[in-house]
Amino acid sequence: MISAPVVTEQFKFEILYQSKISRARVGKIHTPHGIIDTPNFVAVGTNGSLKTLHNHDHQNLNVQLMFCNTYHLMVQPGTALIKEAGGLHRFIHRHQPIITDSGGFQVFSLAYAQAGLEQRELKGQGGKKHANSVVKVSEDGVIFRSYKDGRKILLSPETTVLAQKDLGSDIIIPLDELLPFHVDEQKLKASFDRTHRWECRSLHEHLKNRQNQAMYAVVHGGSDLALREKSCAILTNEAFDGFAIGGALGSDHQELYDTVKGTTVHLPIEAPVHLLGIGDVASIDKCIEYGIDTFDSSYPTKAARHGMILTREGPLKLIRTLHAKEFIPLDEGCQCQTCTHYSRAYLHHLFKANEPSAASLATQHNVHFMMQKMENIRTQIMCGLI
Amino acid sequence: MISAPVVTEQFKFEILYQSKISRARVGKIHTPHGIIDTPNFVAVGTNGSLKTLHNHDHQNLNVQLMFCNTYHLMVQPGTALIKEAGGLHRFIHRHQPIITDSGGFQVFSLAYAQAGLEQRELKGQGGKKHANSVVKVSEDGVIFRSYKDGRKILLSPETTVLAQKDLGSDIIIPLDELLPFHVDEQKLKASFDRTHRWECRSLHEHLKNRQNQAMYAVVHGGSDLALREKSCAILTNEAFDGFAIGGALGSDHQELYDTVKGTTVHLPIEAPVHLLGIGDVASIDKCIEYGIDTFDSSYPTKAARHGMILTREGPLKLIRTLHAKEFIPLDEGCQCQTCTHYSRAYLHHLFKANEPSAASLATQHNVHFMMQKMENIRTQIMCGLI
Repeated sequence: MISAPVVTEQFKFEILYQSKISRARVGKIHTPHGIIDTPNFVAVGTNGSLKTLHNHDHQNLNVQLMFCNTYHLMVQPGTALIKEAGGLHRFIHRHQPIITDSGGFQVFSLAYAQAGLEQRELKGQGGKKHANSVVKVSEDGVIFRSYKDGRKILLSPETTVLAQKDLGSDIIIPLDELLPFHVDEQKLKASFDRTHRWECRSLHEHLKNRQNQAMYAVVHGGSDLALREKSCAILTNEAFDGFAIGGALGSDHQELYDTVKGTTVHLPIEAPVHLLGIGDVASIDKCIEYGIDTFDSSYPTKAARHGMILTREGPLKLIRTLHAKEFIPLDEGCQCQTCTHYSRAYLHHLFKANEPSAASLATQHNVHFMMQKMENIRTQIMCGLI
Repeated sequence: MISAPVVTEQFKFEILYQSKISRARVGKIHTPHGIIDTPNFVAVGTNGSLKTLHNHDHQNLNVQLMFCNTYHLMVQPGTALIKEAGGLHRFIHRHQPIITDSGGFQVFSLAYAQAGLEQRELKGQGGKKHANSVVKVSEDGVIFRSYKDGRKILLSPETTVLAQKDLGSDIIIPLDELLPFHVDEQKLKASFDRTHRWECRSLHEHLKNRQNQAMYAVVHGGSDLALREKSCAILTNEAFDGFAIGGALGSDHQELYDTVKGTTVHLPIEAPVHLLGIGDVASIDKCIEYGIDTFDSSYPTKAARHGMILTREGPLKLIRTLHAKEFIPLDEGCQCQTCTHYSRAYLHHLFKANEPSAASLATQHNVHFMMQKMENIRTQIMCGLI
């Protein structure tokens, strides 16, 4: 009745064109569930659903890679249930590639929210509503309490990998430690070392049963470029399939750019590179030049739910009265289903009337906008402009 | 860019088959925006959107008639703006027929909510959150205050018709008065008379400029069958295109059935009959036999948003733990997009995780269920079973 996704291919990163003026490149990530054209934007569907959209519609939107959060799926509905359903692709009815994280980011965000040590960062934290749920952090891993039923859950390098095996995502991520932005040298050093031990333990667990999945290492080191270089040296020495730039990425755009630029130069040119949790238009434009292949962020979908529309002329706050009588599409020339059928005036009205379709029509547009943007970037690289 | 709906035909009710064992019949209502097969269910899209769904998707769901609320559209975005947009069909991008009410039901619900005189009825009241907004009721009409900007709005037989002219809906409804369920004889009599004066004034206003719209009279008389007969006698004497059964319909199912049965016998067999605000499966089954052609109700869409799924085995509360591991469709054999692609377990998870797609996937199913049910009823009538 409910058809299974078809597993066809092994993981492989193919570079089609390398820019001559920057580290930017156009490529294809081959996965068991199909191809991801790079550079690309990775839409975030935390609980196995891009908020307000339906997975069977993504093919229209051409969302080639979807990011799901292991922490959320561990708590609800549980990864064992998803395994029983035939894996995440089958459970959520998505035939295209999926990437999952380790769950560490969410769990550590909670710990710092508890201690009042939030990261002042560009990335959203998430999960603050579930504060006071972290029970213990040790070399083993971290024990947290499920906000759903109070049960204690151990998130360790081994359990996150096993959870991601249950999910069957195409790209998985090892456990790492998230630190608050400003910590002393000693703490940073201790965490840095532990993170790399955890990542290697994760890889070790993964390699016992590859299950046709790829694992991306997470490069750490905060905004200390020497530490970033060291992290790259450690991780590129292991059998990871790709690299994600994680940890504290800086407190402003310039620091982010410097961190990314100073990191990618130490990564092998032939490996795919993901930038964790960054997806604003300005950062994407800059980081493409430094060789980032994929970006994930909940910003375009979250912004849509708040009536913030991405357009080629910049963002547009649809709830403003000036849009009430604009009988034109959200973004002139946009080919998405929303812009094809509806006007700004209608969506303005839907937002004013608190109609749930406002958020879904806006989300459809913003996701399409990002996909179109990435396609344009790929074309610009091919044309020698980036 | 945004295409206009095509106006093709005049209003006409065509009876294809009249049951030999009941007043049930199969027919077609021809409207300028297409055909409505009857009996049919009319989905409610108060603000010009079936909650959680997109108008350009309705064709898949085969929602042949959509009910929009003039009261809500007068307040937000205003009917003048909708006229400026080219009418409601064009504004909301719906190419199929639309019926609008007069706004009276909502405004009077407010008045009684204010006075603590709520109707104890099968129908939902709506709008209670905007209480204390009715300023004055007189022979002229009713003045209420917009909850949006505080401006006073006169709802009279003439202004509701002019508002519905702005909207350009295919079927419009004259202003009537809604009374609390238990009132004394004298008040009932006075309201009864005024309602019929208002309906005739509405018709008079409508006939000045038909604008290719049809007007259904609203039959009143509470559960007093002699009054219902009298109402039918008055209204069938005027140039209405069809009849809607309104007013207080009873405090339980039996009283509803008796009222409907005792009313339709006094209506001309060749006119279409609508039952206002009733759409539960049991009532539909019964009232079809009494000759009801169309039913509107927000129940199937509202139920869906609360995780109540309509199935051929009866309603199913999806949030219950027993559905957590059911890897089967919501309703086995259902051909809707939700049942084709997703399992009960996935939707259970989406509801537990508060994902907005839970409501839209469930709504899609419930609306499809109602459409399928009405199609089955038409077949059963044709087969001589009803």
